[in-house]
Amino acid sequence: MEQKLARLKEILAEVFDIYAATALLEWDQQCYMPPSGAEGRGNQQATLSRIAHVRFTSDEVGQLLDDLKPYAAQLDPDSDDARLLKATARHYEKETKVPATMVAEWAHLTTVAHGVWTKARSENSFAHFQPYLEKIVDLRRQYAALFAPYESIYDPLLDDFEPGLKTSEVQAIFNTIRPQQVALIQAIAERPQVDDSFLHIAYDPQKQWDFGVEIITKFGYDWNSRRQDKTAHPFTTAFGLGDVRITTRIYPNLPASGWFGTMHECGHALYGMGLDPRLDRSPLARGASLGVHESQSRMWENLVGRSYEFWQYFYPRSQELFPSQLGNVSLEAFYRGINKVSPSLIRVEADEATYNLHIMLRLELEIALMEGKLAVKDLPDAWNTRMKEYLGIVPPNDADGVLQDVHWSGGLIGYFSTYALGNLMSLQLWEKIRQDISDLPEQIRSGKFGALLDWLRQNIHRHGGKFEPQELMQRVTGSKIDSGAYMRYLQEKYGKIYGL
Amino acid sequence: MEQKLARLKEILAEVFDIYAATALLEWDQQCYMPPSGAEGRGNQQATLSRIAHVRFTSDEVGQLLDDLKPYAAQLDPDSDDARLLKATARHYEKETKVPATMVAEWAHLTTVAHGVWTKARSENSFAHFQPYLEKIVDLRRQYAALFAPYESIYDPLLDDFEPGLKTSEVQAIFNTIRPQQVALIQAIAERPQVDDSFLHIAYDPQKQWDFGVEIITKFGYDWNSRRQDKTAHPFTTAFGLGDVRITTRIYPNLPASGWFGTMHECGHALYGMGLDPRLDRSPLARGASLGVHESQSRMWENLVGRSYEFWQYFYPRSQELFPSQLGNVSLEAFYRGINKVSPSLIRVEADEATYNLHIMLRLELEIALMEGKLAVKDLPDAWNTRMKEYLGIVPPNDADGVLQDVHWSGGLIGYFSTYALGNLMSLQLWEKIRQDISDLPEQIRSGKFGALLDWLRQNIHRHGGKFEPQELMQRVTGSKIDSGAYMRYLQEKYGKIYGL
Repeated sequence: MEQKLARLKEILAEVFDIYAATALLEWDQQCYMPPSGAEGRGNQQATLSRIAHVRFTSDEVGQLLDDLKPYAAQLDPDSDDARLLKATARHYEKETKVPATMVAEWAHLTTVAHGVWTKARSENSFAHFQPYLEKIVDLRRQYAALFAPYESIYDPLLDDFEPGLKTSEVQAIFNTIRPQQVALIQAIAERPQVDDSFLHIAYDPQKQWDFGVEIITKFGYDWNSRRQDKTAHPFTTAFGLGDVRITTRIYPNLPASGWFGTMHECGHALYGMGLDPRLDRSPLARGASLGVHESQSRMWENLVGRSYEFWQYFYPRSQELFPSQLGNVSLEAFYRGINKVSPSLIRVEADEATYNLHIMLRLELEIALMEGKLAVKDLPDAWNTRMKEYLGIVPPNDADGVLQDVHWSGGLIGYFSTYALGNLMSLQLWEKIRQDISDLPEQIRSGKFGALLDWLRQNIHRHGGKFEPQELMQRVTGSKIDSGAYMRYLQEKYGKIYGL
Repeated sequence: MEQKLARLKEILAEVFDIYAATALLEWDQQCYMPPSGAEGRGNQQATLSRIAHVRFTSDEVGQLLDDLKPYAAQLDPDSDDARLLKATARHYEKETKVPATMVAEWAHLTTVAHGVWTKARSENSFAHFQPYLEKIVDLRRQYAALFAPYESIYDPLLDDFEPGLKTSEVQAIFNTIRPQQVALIQAIAERPQVDDSFLHIAYDPQKQWDFGVEIITKFGYDWNSRRQDKTAHPFTTAFGLGDVRITTRIYPNLPASGWFGTMHECGHALYGMGLDPRLDRSPLARGASLGVHESQSRMWENLVGRSYEFWQYFYPRSQELFPSQLGNVSLEAFYRGINKVSPSLIRVEADEATYNLHIMLRLELEIALMEGKLAVKDLPDAWNTRMKEYLGIVPPNDADGVLQDVHWSGGLIGYFSTYALGNLMSLQLWEKIRQDISDLPEQIRSGKFGALLDWLRQNIHRHGGKFEPQELMQRVTGSKIDSGAYMRYLQEKYGKIYGL
């Protein structure tokens, strides 16, 4: 049995290597590839992805998993090997259920649809995108049907990003939180508004970059094993534990975007670097889910980076680097500026208090589309109605409304809720951390982040993909994903800032 | 048959894609990878190389090649398909002849030997490297024996880099040229020496870089499909026709190194970009050989870049960029400086007149080692004896002598002669080009390189790997590889500079 397990691990390590190579192909395409390389890069990605898929879904892997079932049953269920076998069997079942013809049709459709969406958005024409989105929804329904029976047809899609989570669980959470968030931003709207004009003037791009580097170096970002590059869309990638990379975007007149974006990606990268080295080159060498990953990035970006204590430490340095922009702005005014609440049309620019509402809107529409309760042609109206209801504003056009996100054009239905779940989990974890590290605010005020990082490594990072998100939260915090901590946080923080 | 050919091409395209991914892994490792990524990168390279090898040497490929033999016999022998089948059959035979155990032993040995060589060189201890080199020579002899019968046991090694070329052919060429080159540098040594002290002072690194970029942009380096990065050891790589990249090294006090290095790598890149697009993603999407590739890089570096006409155009710009360094240096003095002849210990620093002698020395020693006429333990003495004979100098230690090159530690025996063959071919082609483009010197003097590049594309680049080097030279110049043109060039150029 040990031999069979070793053989399985060998194949899984090879598959890991191939996916690491595809991640580098992607990183290079975003960071450095000359434009005319796109066609060749598409071929390379297609070839490597196909090889990895064929290797992983081979009969040999299926046979090994079958043979190892009795062995797995004898193991400590929390051991690395037991968890590896469980997760691998789960992936294997998912990947082998999808017929090759559907995989090919899907790859072709989403590639074409992405191009159509780009054009449709720039021309503000939902009608052009509509037939492609209809086809995408149709194919996603066929895909989900492969995994029947289920409570909701949306379950298999959600499960791709948040293993084990049910649609009904997410709906219950969001139904609790939505009216509270709507009420909060209405209350804020009635208060005197915050001035953040000093965050919309010119800041030297190189100094913006350098300041971001200073901050994440303090967080524990290790430049011996990581790097940072510039891209149009920031992201984090990893090619194994020894090589994790982030990218950042700098706007000359929007310094907060680069700084908080850098902290956000650093949060992802710290997760990727904190895995137990025993998990490297295995399917468990990843985060527990996209939502748990987002809990880490959001924690460093918001709970650390947008806290008053953080700027008690860093603000003198900001004023030193940017005397003409910040010299006459008080710490208090700066703190209020970076935490300004203002309902806006675009999700990626949303503040902490409004962000989740953008997500809930998308989740509800996706579920309705999948369940056949909403037709694609009616999507723009449904979008605008909910925007008015949740955020009090209506997009003047579809480009800034239903066409704003890239996700659907690439077939990513089931993905959005992970952003909001990450916000919720970040606070659930934070309340536990505050119990365990009683002087955390004082540490942050002194620029010390080591105890926080150690806690995260011990409780979250090192486990990699061993536990599904609900199980992980239960183990660490004593309860499943819950919105209570997040609402307490919003009420207290913004209650103070806006004098509610 | 068309179906079988299409299937073969499909597999070859996949293999091409995998190798393109390994080339990116290598490029990234040299340019951007953080240090701790090395172990993971080694795994990724090993996995992808193994997959490409297994895919290419599969029974399916063997069967397709067999089935297609009668079809190939009916094709125009110069057609793309006929040449593709011929080259593929050749690679297939080579790759399948080597037992998997030998491949594995070789990979392990050369990896270890490289580390040992690095240490041995820094400690100036040939004794430490000796047992590893003995094992390498032994394994290379076993490898060559797989391809018996042959005229020389060195033939199969040479053939890996210069397809079709025989050891006896290279020896005949080098035996002709060696005494002439030795006599030339002795004559030069008796003349007043050239002053190039103005090339050994500080030049702003960024301006050095920018000037190199200006030059190769004029050569026709297209930044839409290429890029340039900094590495410790300059190289050129390609991931298909649409994405060719060069790297350059800048020394603050040695501007000529960066400038001529940039032109050299640009020469390689222009070859890679000039292939007929029909050959992309096939085994013919490469140069005819390493030697032919080197003829292109050497041509742009030396025949263009170190010519008087070139600097008639570019020198005013150099003086403008570097007024304090070059303001008081005449064009004539600058031209003499960049063409200074001076026998030196290190191959990579050698000038045009002495370079080939470094190569001949290595080739003779490699042949003697392979034929069992020289023991590895006697290699340092044999090295020093030849240095004295050919260049008139003796290394004070092995680090600057027999241990100076990385090649042998990586198992690259058979490689060196391609450098000298490239020099010879560059002049053979150049004489033909001078006949075909009668006003080439005037064009270069006006900074115009389009006609030259067009000629190279038409006669060399577009063919990719369709023709073996001897056949290519025969077709283009009317004779096989020959040293006559090169000696005429050296005699005339250096006769003038040194007043011989």
